Amino acid sequence: MSALARLTARFARIATIQEASGMLGWDAAAMMPQGGAAARGDQLAVLAGLAHGLLVAPEVGGDLAEAEAESSGLDPWGAANLRLMRQAHTRASALPADLVEAQARANSACEKIWREARRTADFPLVAPSLREVMALVREQAQALAPALGLSPFDALMDGYQPGIGAADVAPVFTAVEAFLADALPRAEALQAARPAPSRPPGPFPVPAQEALCRHLSVRAGLEPEHSRLDRSLHPFCGGTPTDVRITTRYDERDFAQALMGVMHETGHALYERGLPVAWARQPVGAACGMAAHESQSLIIEMQACRSDPFLHWLGGALPGFLGGDPQSYAGENLALLWRRVERGCIRVDADEMTYPAHVILRFRLEQALVAGDLAVADLPGAWNQGMQSLLGITPPDDASGCLQDIHWYDGAVGYFPSYTLGAMAAAQLMAAARRDVDGLDAALGRGDLGPLVGWLRARVHGMGSLFGFNDLLRHATGKPLDPLDFEAHLTARYLT
Amino acid sequence: MSALARLTARFARIATIQEASGMLGWDAAAMMPQGGAAARGDQLAVLAGLAHGLLVAPEVGGDLAEAEAESSGLDPWGAANLRLMRQAHTRASALPADLVEAQARANSACEKIWREARRTADFPLVAPSLREVMALVREQAQALAPALGLSPFDALMDGYQPGIGAADVAPVFTAVEAFLADALPRAEALQAARPAPSRPPGPFPVPAQEALCRHLSVRAGLEPEHSRLDRSLHPFCGGTPTDVRITTRYDERDFAQALMGVMHETGHALYERGLPVAWARQPVGAACGMAAHESQSLIIEMQACRSDPFLHWLGGALPGFLGGDPQSYAGENLALLWRRVERGCIRVDADEMTYPAHVILRFRLEQALVAGDLAVADLPGAWNQGMQSLLGITPPDDASGCLQDIHWYDGAVGYFPSYTLGAMAAAQLMAAARRDVDGLDAALGRGDLGPLVGWLRARVHGMGSLFGFNDLLRHATGKPLDPLDFEAHLTARYLT
Repeated sequence: MSALARLTARFARIATIQEASGMLGWDAAAMMPQGGAAARGDQLAVLAGLAHGLLVAPEVGGDLAEAEAESSGLDPWGAANLRLMRQAHTRASALPADLVEAQARANSACEKIWREARRTADFPLVAPSLREVMALVREQAQALAPALGLSPFDALMDGYQPGIGAADVAPVFTAVEAFLADALPRAEALQAARPAPSRPPGPFPVPAQEALCRHLSVRAGLEPEHSRLDRSLHPFCGGTPTDVRITTRYDERDFAQALMGVMHETGHALYERGLPVAWARQPVGAACGMAAHESQSLIIEMQACRSDPFLHWLGGALPGFLGGDPQSYAGENLALLWRRVERGCIRVDADEMTYPAHVILRFRLEQALVAGDLAVADLPGAWNQGMQSLLGITPPDDASGCLQDIHWYDGAVGYFPSYTLGAMAAAQLMAAARRDVDGLDAALGRGDLGPLVGWLRARVHGMGSLFGFNDLLRHATGKPLDPLDFEAHLTARYLT
Repeated sequence: MSALARLTARFARIATIQEASGMLGWDAAAMMPQGGAAARGDQLAVLAGLAHGLLVAPEVGGDLAEAEAESSGLDPWGAANLRLMRQAHTRASALPADLVEAQARANSACEKIWREARRTADFPLVAPSLREVMALVREQAQALAPALGLSPFDALMDGYQPGIGAADVAPVFTAVEAFLADALPRAEALQAARPAPSRPPGPFPVPAQEALCRHLSVRAGLEPEHSRLDRSLHPFCGGTPTDVRITTRYDERDFAQALMGVMHETGHALYERGLPVAWARQPVGAACGMAAHESQSLIIEMQACRSDPFLHWLGGALPGFLGGDPQSYAGENLALLWRRVERGCIRVDADEMTYPAHVILRFRLEQALVAGDLAVADLPGAWNQGMQSLLGITPPDDASGCLQDIHWYDGAVGYFPSYTLGAMAAAQLMAAARRDVDGLDAALGRGDLGPLVGWLRARVHGMGSLFGFNDLLRHATGKPLDPLDFEAHLTARYLT
């Protein structure tokens, strides 16, 4: 057995354990009774330990060196796979075991206190825990940086969207900030001049909403024999490429939340379904990163399903599922209703125009926190100042401010940019798909996502991790990430 | 860290991996879309390999020897735990890896062909595969026997109900056979003289049945915060002690199947819930074996829920869940309906009086198959002869004969006795509980299983694997397995 064959078997085994963990994670969110939580935590910790052990085992270094020495004959996929094996090994080996353990403990403790702090809008309650989490994140970044040849903050970002660092993101975010300073007031003025949308009155029984969501998800290409749709407190996409599990939540007064949520998760799910089967369970066969993943959910939800032609079609289909006055489902009304621009404090409720402001704020603050330029105690003030500067609003309390997101309190630093990079990539991919595929919008007008999804399968899903984020965009659209497509999208949708 | 501490940590790790497998197995039966089957098979195989690897690792033998040398100070629980660790290690180490692999392959291949053979009642189709499965079972038995100090067939039985061998079972089964030869015709004559039961007409919508089943299961003591009830093709009890998953299936024409099925699985689930928490994830903290487990499902389903007082109470409760004419739910009618004796070909449809005949037949045939006294080609003839001798009936075809059960075709030999040992133990435990607990039947008459379940928790569930099967019965009832209690139960219920 060659070193490469040994590595291939090892990484398949690691991926298979991670599949098991993924399923158990889905179960914990969608199925598990509360009393199973402690045992589930142990199960996930043991599986994580087994996968980690396989990744950092002493023989891996030798096998990698041997395989790299014999790699001249590899095709681009094989070469990329070997490179990604090396990166995964390097990343996992760079962290001392006691740091990994200390982080797991500190993150879990902080996250628990954060729930209480958010409930009571009491930042000082969680500040000491967050200080410890940030100190350990800084240690983590310092340990990863030399091994990966990256700056400490980029080493953190690399864990979410490999190959993208602060220097890629900062100028793009600066450009978007400048665009928004001009565009947002204009969009608001135009919106104010339009008729107010009317909200379909409801209530919308959950079974009817569920049937609608299932129908649209299957129609978008997600096969029932390879997927499930269930409910959870926080919607997500989990499972494995041949068995994708998406979740949503239902509000009987407003069906848009579940509908658009399911289409968002369907976008994630289609990416997983379309990954290259020949490289299943190998690093190069996995999705390209969090920003790439978010581009696939947002191109379905934001670009396709909130487009004029799709909304027009959807308006005709909704009465059959939900009953009520067909007039209230008219495409024009849905567009006014579901593309409303509004400066708000809460990221997850934000529209696509103000959303980048939320991300830009977090990206700047988390860099300052890791660099030590911002003390944890000063976070609420810096947050509120940033919200004022970016969106001209001030949160009524820290629960609507720096306490709203779980990420930092759970040790996830460097993740936030992925949301907006994904939104930009989605716009860029949509523009390219429109150029490449005749009749793409006409198909959307028939509720048919097929041509778009087919293009995405060929250009994005099927590429796995053969390319990094920018090269994937170059392969699919002819250029690396370009915020102008996103600005053009916002201009077309909100400023005309 | 002492050798014992290392072993304790190792076995906890193994049990935690097995918990993960158990959850994934439940998911495969109750939730998984068909397209996930191949990946799930890989996940389960990898987890099984990891658990097996931990169990047979080279250092385990040394740790066991060291711990055994220092074991004089252990209390009975600690001593039993160490003994069970040794047994698990011995059993797992006795089988060469290539035999384990060959069995996994042959069982899986045979099981697939068996599905087709059963569908078309074509025994010759599956005979060659079954021959291979049996040859490998024979090898397995030969490999296990010297390591365990048991006869080859007992070494197989030991995998299902440790400590019980053919010499324990054979005389008991002979006694029951003699009892049935006399009792069955008498029960049939008495039954024929009684009024025919009337079947509540239905249909019974699944949601109403489900609400009923949940209500009864919770009422029996299964806490919703530690359990789920779902649907699957074949009802079972899976999951982990703090997160038990039971399943059932629903027939809109007959609610008894789901109702009694759920109470059966609730009995299994209560056993898991009541296992000693202080020994969780250790061998001595697990259930005592398959016969013991079956005794817990049958004492709830057969002994308690089909008793006169419970049926009387249930008859009054059913109209509130199912609607319809209260008269058709009268306890006396339910008793005639749900305690009907009938000679049939299918084991899983058998009543509690004829059920032992099905098991006795299988027990004798599987011994002959393993010993080589019965050729696979002669199985259908031997089966039909046995059915004629035991129940005086002949199956119309092999699908209703030797093809009906999956067990042998999946390599499970020596399992069948557990069903009837469990039924006997259930009768023996019920008799002891009636002696020990004042007002047990009065409580059943109020639909209250609490006193019975409380007694089982103390005498059976909380004992884990501290005792073997017979010693567990001795601890709980004052004597080892005694078929007379089972005969007395059948006599009281069917011959008076």
